[in-house]
Amino acid sequence: MSYAADVLNAAHLELHGGGDAELRRPFDPTAHDLDASFRLTRFADLKGRGCKVPQEVLSKLVSALQQDYSAQDQEAQFLNVAIPRIGIGLDCAVIPLRHGGLCLVQTTDFFYPIVDDPYMMGKIACANVLSDLYAMGVTDCDNMLMLLAVSTKMTEKERDVVIPLIMRGFKDSALEAGTTVTGGQSVVNPWCTIGGVASTICQPNEYIVPDNAVVGDVLVLTKPLGTQVAVNAHQWIDQPERWNRIKLVVSEEDVRKAYHRAMSSMSRLNRVAARLMHKYNAHGATDITGFGLLGHAQTLAAHQKKDVSFVIHNLPVIAKMAAVAKACGNMFQLLQGHSAETSGGLLICLPREQAAAYCKDIEKQEGYQAWIIGIVEKGNKTARIIDKPRVIEVPAKD
Amino acid sequence: MSYAADVLNAAHLELHGGGDAELRRPFDPTAHDLDASFRLTRFADLKGRGCKVPQEVLSKLVSALQQDYSAQDQEAQFLNVAIPRIGIGLDCAVIPLRHGGLCLVQTTDFFYPIVDDPYMMGKIACANVLSDLYAMGVTDCDNMLMLLAVSTKMTEKERDVVIPLIMRGFKDSALEAGTTVTGGQSVVNPWCTIGGVASTICQPNEYIVPDNAVVGDVLVLTKPLGTQVAVNAHQWIDQPERWNRIKLVVSEEDVRKAYHRAMSSMSRLNRVAARLMHKYNAHGATDITGFGLLGHAQTLAAHQKKDVSFVIHNLPVIAKMAAVAKACGNMFQLLQGHSAETSGGLLICLPREQAAAYCKDIEKQEGYQAWIIGIVEKGNKTARIIDKPRVIEVPAKD
Repeated sequence: MSYAADVLNAAHLELHGGGDAELRRPFDPTAHDLDASFRLTRFADLKGRGCKVPQEVLSKLVSALQQDYSAQDQEAQFLNVAIPRIGIGLDCAVIPLRHGGLCLVQTTDFFYPIVDDPYMMGKIACANVLSDLYAMGVTDCDNMLMLLAVSTKMTEKERDVVIPLIMRGFKDSALEAGTTVTGGQSVVNPWCTIGGVASTICQPNEYIVPDNAVVGDVLVLTKPLGTQVAVNAHQWIDQPERWNRIKLVVSEEDVRKAYHRAMSSMSRLNRVAARLMHKYNAHGATDITGFGLLGHAQTLAAHQKKDVSFVIHNLPVIAKMAAVAKACGNMFQLLQGHSAETSGGLLICLPREQAAAYCKDIEKQEGYQAWIIGIVEKGNKTARIIDKPRVIEVPAKD
Repeated sequence: MSYAADVLNAAHLELHGGGDAELRRPFDPTAHDLDASFRLTRFADLKGRGCKVPQEVLSKLVSALQQDYSAQDQEAQFLNVAIPRIGIGLDCAVIPLRHGGLCLVQTTDFFYPIVDDPYMMGKIACANVLSDLYAMGVTDCDNMLMLLAVSTKMTEKERDVVIPLIMRGFKDSALEAGTTVTGGQSVVNPWCTIGGVASTICQPNEYIVPDNAVVGDVLVLTKPLGTQVAVNAHQWIDQPERWNRIKLVVSEEDVRKAYHRAMSSMSRLNRVAARLMHKYNAHGATDITGFGLLGHAQTLAAHQKKDVSFVIHNLPVIAKMAAVAKACGNMFQLLQGHSAETSGGLLICLPREQAAAYCKDIEKQEGYQAWIIGIVEKGNKTARIIDKPRVIEVPAKD
């Protein structure tokens, strides 16, 4: 077999080796004629959503943008119906348009490589961008742009192998979501960067403004936590002094499994979760990413109209990753709700009587569990995790 | 006066010191309690649109995205009217929507600091993003998102001074364009990065597909070339060995003037230029950015329906910058049409009998010249600059 055919074949097997990402063959650099030590995650010093500007710094910095919008700018009128102008701080911008009562719902996100498989990295980046639309209950994306920075440290060969794979992953995920990638921007940069922009033009009934939580609602989470822990633990397999810290609580096989579960989870679209929000009358949702479960829960709580607070009792975590996080001391703050996630699940406020049906329906349609993790109480628009939350291992057993 | 009041006052003077950017006080780091040696442009090793992935590499890499769109995907039908799907390679993506014959016109761009004044950098970044919409004849932007990377090398103090100024510049430019910034993404990154996303939802008659050039048309350019040369020459004032190469052809004052003219030009919106495209029946346009005048002219020529070619005879250049470019040998390739521009002018195909009126009108409305720089001949969809193009100094005299 020729070299070229060899490489194509390897790519083909990786891309089409199985519908289930957990069964997908791991990315093998040598099959692409790259050095066996090639690691995509080494082309940035920060990982995934860990690259975010800290929440409190961001609030300070963006005040420059917000201060000039006076109260009457907050709403636009169309046929005497107020359309809220939703801006900075929530998952998407919602902008009333000049045309026929329509709105533009738009979001952007980009970050650094979090996994070493370029194709999966592209899929995860796309799922992560779309997740902000899904959090607003929007199920159809009209257009995507791709944002890409090629690392200055990549060789030409590495670039020519890796970038098309990332692009293809991104595009395949967009196709799965029923949308297309029509453009974007690419630059060179010290750190490899990948992200995009997702836009939808829709009627106001197509999105759910996330501010209607009421006392008695429950909180549902649609993906397990622990993606950041899993990708770090996976890197530590090659780093003895790090590995020694966790080897008493996990085996190498546990970590490899967790890593593949994390990749599978991060690349999964929250689209069904969004569609079911309408069916079960969700009162609002957000997606869990860089600021961790508690960070995003707090932002969501702060935006509620009623005087409510969120209390979280259960933490579904990718199997064994809670133990890894504990073995690392305070490093991840996973059980405190601060561990960054990439392309995490939706955190949804649902009427209590609908939540169980929601979880059952999503499991039936997707084959993945969702969990009731907390409740909405009377309160001052904050969120907290109880002292000793119950950790739910996902899956419960192998 | 307290320290805080001092800083605010300095910012106030810089921001409101004059309507004309050429008269604006230069950015003074010490007025913001930063070190006198602070230079925003040092927070990236590449400048402005010089950071683009080379055109030929990009073509190869994006082939992964294009190959799966078959011919019937290129157009969507609405009420039996074909709406072209315009994608990768042109200035904007144009996407037919599910709603009432409307289209989404969308673009994104981001790059590294090109000037040391953070406020002006924000304005330039915004004008540069919007320019892609204007090149399509779109005059109203419905929404902007801001993309920002804070350099890992900035001190907290530097970050807290610089980032709000950049944001404010970006936002002021958006307001000037009649639009608002409703969100975005910010990360930390080795190099400071600034950019955005501009989106418009419009009817098909609101944009001009840039493919209708006919033999006999003329080419008009709405801003002078030489921004990259000017910002580099300005940095060389502090670098004796570089400065020695050009000091025989320019004085320090010439360079400072050229730098301020470049900043003024880069921060100017191409909005009036876009509006007049409709009035004078433009056959298509593009904006001049990272690939230089000839690079973008070639892309525009390649997209024409008729068998035409573009021939460029005149090169309007910021005063003295052609001499600087010549003194630097082949470094910029300015007179060959390859020098990168940031937020450059529109290059517009106009019917010959309308071009002079177009130029007169834009000068009347904006106080800035536009130039007829070339013609459209019969040909094979390429563009070239004649052997000894006429260089037009802008302005002709001080």
